[in-house]
Amino acid sequence: MFRFLTAGESHGPCLTIVVEGLPAGLPVEKALIDADLRRRQGGYGRGGRMKIEKDEIRFLSGVRHGKTLGSPITMQIENRDWVNWEERMSAAPVDAEMERVSRVRPGHADFTGAIKYGQDDVRNVIERSSSRETASRVAVGGLCRQFLAQFGIEIHSHVLSVVEVGYEEERGMTADAYSQEMWEAVEASPMRCARPELTEKMIERILEAKRAGDTCGGVFEVVAFGVPIGLGSYSQWDRRLSTRIGMALMSIPSTKGVEIGAGFGATRRTGSQVHDVLRRSEEGQWSHLTNNAGGIEGGISNGEPIVARVGIKPIPSLARPLPSVDLATGENIDQSRYERSDVCVVPAAGVVGEAMLAPVLTEALLEKYGGDSMDEMLRHFRS
Amino acid sequence: MFRFLTAGESHGPCLTIVVEGLPAGLPVEKALIDADLRRRQGGYGRGGRMKIEKDEIRFLSGVRHGKTLGSPITMQIENRDWVNWEERMSAAPVDAEMERVSRVRPGHADFTGAIKYGQDDVRNVIERSSSRETASRVAVGGLCRQFLAQFGIEIHSHVLSVVEVGYEEERGMTADAYSQEMWEAVEASPMRCARPELTEKMIERILEAKRAGDTCGGVFEVVAFGVPIGLGSYSQWDRRLSTRIGMALMSIPSTKGVEIGAGFGATRRTGSQVHDVLRRSEEGQWSHLTNNAGGIEGGISNGEPIVARVGIKPIPSLARPLPSVDLATGENIDQSRYERSDVCVVPAAGVVGEAMLAPVLTEALLEKYGGDSMDEMLRHFRS
Amino acid sequence: MFRFLTAGESHGPCLTIVVEGLPAGLPVEKALIDADLRRRQGGYGRGGRMKIEKDEIRFLSGVRHGKTLGSPITMQIENRDWVNWEERMSAAPVDAEMERVSRVRPGHADFTGAIKYGQDDVRNVIERSSSRETASRVAVGGLCRQFLAQFGIEIHSHVLSVVEVGYEEERGMTADAYSQEMWEAVEASPMRCARPELTEKMIERILEAKRAGDTCGGVFEVVAFGVPIGLGSYSQWDRRLSTRIGMALMSIPSTKGVEIGAGFGATRRTGSQVHDVLRRSEEGQWSHLTNNAGGIEGGISNGEPIVARVGIKPIPSLARPLPSVDLATGENIDQSRYERSDVCVVPAAGVVGEAMLAPVLTEALLEKYGGDSMDEMLRHFRS
Amino acid sequence: MFRFLTAGESHGPCLTIVVEGLPAGLPVEKALIDADLRRRQGGYGRGGRMKIEKDEIRFLSGVRHGKTLGSPITMQIENRDWVNWEERMSAAPVDAEMERVSRVRPGHADFTGAIKYGQDDVRNVIERSSSRETASRVAVGGLCRQFLAQFGIEIHSHVLSVVEVGYEEERGMTADAYSQEMWEAVEASPMRCARPELTEKMIERILEAKRAGDTCGGVFEVVAFGVPIGLGSYSQWDRRLSTRIGMALMSIPSTKGVEIGAGFGATRRTGSQVHDVLRRSEEGQWSHLTNNAGGIEGGISNGEPIVARVGIKPIPSLARPLPSVDLATGENIDQSRYERSDVCVVPAAGVVGEAMLAPVLTEALLEKYGGDSMDEMLRHFRS
Repeated sequence: MFRFLTAGESHGPCLTIVVEGLPAGLPVEKALIDADLRRRQGGYGRGGRMKIEKDEIRFLSGVRHGKTLGSPITMQIENRDWVNWEERMSAAPVDAEMERVSRVRPGHADFTGAIKYGQDDVRNVIERSSSRETASRVAVGGLCRQFLAQFGIEIHSHVLSVVEVGYEEERGMTADAYSQEMWEAVEASPMRCARPELTEKMIERILEAKRAGDTCGGVFEVVAFGVPIGLGSYSQWDRRLSTRIGMALMSIPSTKGVEIGAGFGATRRTGSQVHDVLRRSEEGQWSHLTNNAGGIEGGISNGEPIVARVGIKPIPSLARPLPSVDLATGENIDQSRYERSDVCVVPAAGVVGEAMLAPVLTEALLEKYGGDSMDEMLRHFRS
Repeated sequence: MFRFLTAGESHGPCLTIVVEGLPAGLPVEKALIDADLRRRQGGYGRGGRMKIEKDEIRFLSGVRHGKTLGSPITMQIENRDWVNWEERMSAAPVDAEMERVSRVRPGHADFTGAIKYGQDDVRNVIERSSSRETASRVAVGGLCRQFLAQFGIEIHSHVLSVVEVGYEEERGMTADAYSQEMWEAVEASPMRCARPELTEKMIERILEAKRAGDTCGGVFEVVAFGVPIGLGSYSQWDRRLSTRIGMALMSIPSTKGVEIGAGFGATRRTGSQVHDVLRRSEEGQWSHLTNNAGGIEGGISNGEPIVARVGIKPIPSLARPLPSVDLATGENIDQSRYERSDVCVVPAAGVVGEAMLAPVLTEALLEKYGGDSMDEMLRHFRS
Repeated sequence: MFRFLTAGESHGPCLTIVVEGLPAGLPVEKALIDADLRRRQGGYGRGGRMKIEKDEIRFLSGVRHGKTLGSPITMQIENRDWVNWEERMSAAPVDAEMERVSRVRPGHADFTGAIKYGQDDVRNVIERSSSRETASRVAVGGLCRQFLAQFGIEIHSHVLSVVEVGYEEERGMTADAYSQEMWEAVEASPMRCARPELTEKMIERILEAKRAGDTCGGVFEVVAFGVPIGLGSYSQWDRRLSTRIGMALMSIPSTKGVEIGAGFGATRRTGSQVHDVLRRSEEGQWSHLTNNAGGIEGGISNGEPIVARVGIKPIPSLARPLPSVDLATGENIDQSRYERSDVCVVPAAGVVGEAMLAPVLTEALLEKYGGDSMDEMLRHFRS
Repeated sequence: MFRFLTAGESHGPCLTIVVEGLPAGLPVEKALIDADLRRRQGGYGRGGRMKIEKDEIRFLSGVRHGKTLGSPITMQIENRDWVNWEERMSAAPVDAEMERVSRVRPGHADFTGAIKYGQDDVRNVIERSSSRETASRVAVGGLCRQFLAQFGIEIHSHVLSVVEVGYEEERGMTADAYSQEMWEAVEASPMRCARPELTEKMIERILEAKRAGDTCGGVFEVVAFGVPIGLGSYSQWDRRLSTRIGMALMSIPSTKGVEIGAGFGATRRTGSQVHDVLRRSEEGQWSHLTNNAGGIEGGISNGEPIVARVGIKPIPSLARPLPSVDLATGENIDQSRYERSDVCVVPAAGVVGEAMLAPVLTEALLEKYGGDSMDEMLRHFRS
């Protein structure tokens, strides 16, 4: 019964997150969640807003004296810009005439949201469709990661490419293809890329796009280590671990593609080149010689790192806006509008990717091991 | 409240499907569902089983005199091979000693399922993890497609590539990039590929793999036409239409990648080259000049065709088996075992892809328009 | 992820049940489920149909050689009367003109179902709204009870009253207020009542009603023994064990009331007379001096028997039908119609009550202890 | 996809509620929700806390300029007592030694919660199990009622009895058995009872209990008017409107019984005395001569008022505490502890009952009529 809801508009007073179903007695540190929020706000290519918002959560329920209670956990993230929006975003009716947004931006929810929800002010759409919402998800992820750590599970992400700039050679996906040093390099890079020379080229590419009033997308990889064998099931389509990972990652705003393991690359090789040979050590340890499966066989985790890649489209808010339509007049216009925006969010998107993988694994662990308190659950896990 | 469950082992007596939540009064034709089942069983590269099974459904509930009742719909597909398996797959205990399967095939659920479910006979795993289960999904899809047709929604799929053989140029994704003739060509091709010369090359590639005791994967595209603007929502991560499509398509056995619209290709271009310009005609019709979004903006359908691509890994059951482990002895072995299998299932997988997209759209339509009978729902739809 | 769907019309070919989420390796006996089906069909006051149907299930999936596989379990119950209904209930269109039912019976779904689903033939409603559907639930319950037995949990039911005939004194609800002998007496009574003299009076009351062309309802009690402390939660409204029991029992056709523990009686006493004093033995065993709480405090099981009572209204199909409306003419009529029916279903309803309590406890156990196989789950349970 | 989560501890900083799935464009008034919160806090027999807390909500998301946006709605209710609890209930670890609660109160979650969640400080349990949580539900209900009002649906409740003091004669349940004057009398009564002389007697009864250090329960009735024919379904056990109402009402803390329509009374009469005769007027209006069904036949609303009654046990926190156990020492003790408490919450519970019926009807309406904006939904409703 693990579940969560996020709420909050981009320029409303705050983001609110309620998470239900974590066991009691889990030690949680606000600082770890705040650190993830900062990782999301960092990265080269972010716009002005990131300087305004220094996100941090406040626990409003479910945690007492540093431990979970088993009751629903509320986290809240203040929107520091709220003071400038109190009237424009007031919940109560206001007397003043409000300016309406009517020129829709291609690639955003502006058009679809206005039609769906019957709005003549696109502001009523973009406040929630904004990727500001992903801060809430990062808070959920930051909480879940503390839970997963109790079972020795760790999640990382790194950027593989920006536009056409990225890794060219094939990369391994077994545990030894990654290292602590690598992740440190990632966190030190403004692009969250493990290779300094690639980082530099990516930044150049972003600068080039920025000068052209254009934007960049790219690809990140997210990896979970220490996942036990047996999460997920082939029993029903919606219980496959791959199903749930596909769901979680595809839900990230701007995502147009998700791959697990060798992904689309696996379609370009034959079976004998793709499938991972299983070995058993004399001590009874299981391992695979390769990890093209990305840690999932038959919809179930196989003990190797869970590896997924996510393709993020370029940001739709262009400084040199594309042609579009003005919903107020119904006329085709030469230029949509520009809303303050970043040029490239791929490094941040990776942090969101980690945050979306975390609840998937959390839920699957809870299903397999059960338990109302951490003591009980760890007892089950070790039994 | 649309939902469905599928059940049934590969060599059990039958597959059973229960679908709940379709309105009453929907005309349904068994023949249309059977036709989809046959499309799934066709395609070049299928093994011997496809000749044994000539799947057809039987309605056991929920349909009377050609129309749905609003009650749960049961469909059953007999396994014609059952007569040869009655004892080996008997639900009741049997006296005879049963042969156990213990050599696990890389890339299958053999290993992960045996560990997860504590089985020493891999037969207890592979009977359900087998892609035989996808016949059930095709039945669900065949039913949903008849529902969607009432709203003018049509779903098609075609194969884009097998191993390295496939389309080389970029393809458009607006409605006029597809045609009735194209889909007829697809259905006429044993590869479910629109181009005869590609079909031929794909078949050659499969034959080559077969001679080498190897297998092939590939990529298919699935497209939904006539989807109204406004399905899905950015409001919560799990309500995005992209989330649900990612979930449904990633659940297809052997899937390692899912793309929507321009997919990973969108990451290699800048924003100005990716986002689709919106136009409004004098008659008030909406359209986009391109469809890189694949019909979804901000997690909501935008009126363009929904376009997704799915990457299918090569079949794991190789005629020249890879090394593996024997679970009975715990020893590493030079050759896993070979279970009767196809060489390439990409054409069939496309049919499954259609079948998985159909319930996603069905559910989204039901949420948006409501209605307990088709009359009521169409009244809402047209209001 | 425990869930189930039932399907099937009253005069269709069969009832179908799919149950998903039981662990692998659970020994299951068809005979035990069939025995419950027979218990449901027994009881004084049943009409002619019960002689036609001798229900038994057939496992069509999920069970092999007497044990669950972890895959979805399909059970099917043939409708023996089907041969007489093949044309009238045909899934395919038929040429013959079908007689339509248009006079609606008060107290049934005839009217509400016809309006809801837009039907001009009430047959299309009553086929599913019929309490024939409860046979499916009994099959689910029969399966779950075998699961619960592994944890020492047992469920019983007995009839407390029929119309005004029933227990007059207050009855205890602690474990020692019930006994094996009592349950044997219940199963031996045609009324499923523990007291022979009450059984006799109830039968007389039913006979009296029958002679008057009338029908009887009554109250049954359902009790679960051996439920561990800690199922359910106050954390969210829908996680309380009482919530789920209230839901499950209220779903039984003809149910108009559900009580837990002292129920409405608790409202007529003060706090000091109602709340159950907790004791701890020297060996550390917990017990309560009374069980007015019915085994649930704060929405969580407290180790005492779970006790609930269900009020069943009299059967709506009267041999001397009440006035009603003919939907075909829209005219008020003096007499609704009579469809073959029982006079009193309270003993059978008790068996359905057991069957609905079982999945509630199954789900709660799975949440608390997790586990993909019985070995794993019992290891957790005992850890 | 209507859903909500509530969160918050009794002495934490606030209660938080997230509601997802209401259409856009619904006019919402904070004042109406606050009025319901005050109604919950009123009523004779409440303890000191009610004077501390003057609950009001603050919208933190989902509402702009007086209308819903279609995005998740966050409501927050400040706990005014928080200033006195900041350290004791701090989310962060504190240096000071905290006093632990270890004597469990019979009838509360104290014991079950401590065992379930592995807590040695019962404070960690009672903060969430406290019925303070019902303020959150009232906020949800207050919101839903504004939605329901758009469709002409109104919900009321009134108190029928306190201990043995209450209505003695049978009461009708058709629409004309209730009146606007009656509801005004209810709201004017400190007991929320329609009859002044009963109000007085109830107050006397509460005073008597109070003097004895004892507590009182009772029964309230909740009624929904204007519910259209056709909500809920017999199609699957969990879709019956009665199932969902049983679930929602049984979830109210201290509830031990739920009845619909004639309830248990229906079991004491025969069929001819219970079932409601349907009439059709010349104008084609449907009505029933009686409403023993409580507005639901076959699990589907029949156009009559939905009538349910809820039995509330006496409050477990007694000024003269019952014997119990001290969890810290494991010893049986003569007196549990007393936590500040009310003597009778039945009037307040009625308000909670209204609040729990509202989301059930909201969800059922959304399923039947669909729609993303109020305009669209009302168009469907009227079509």
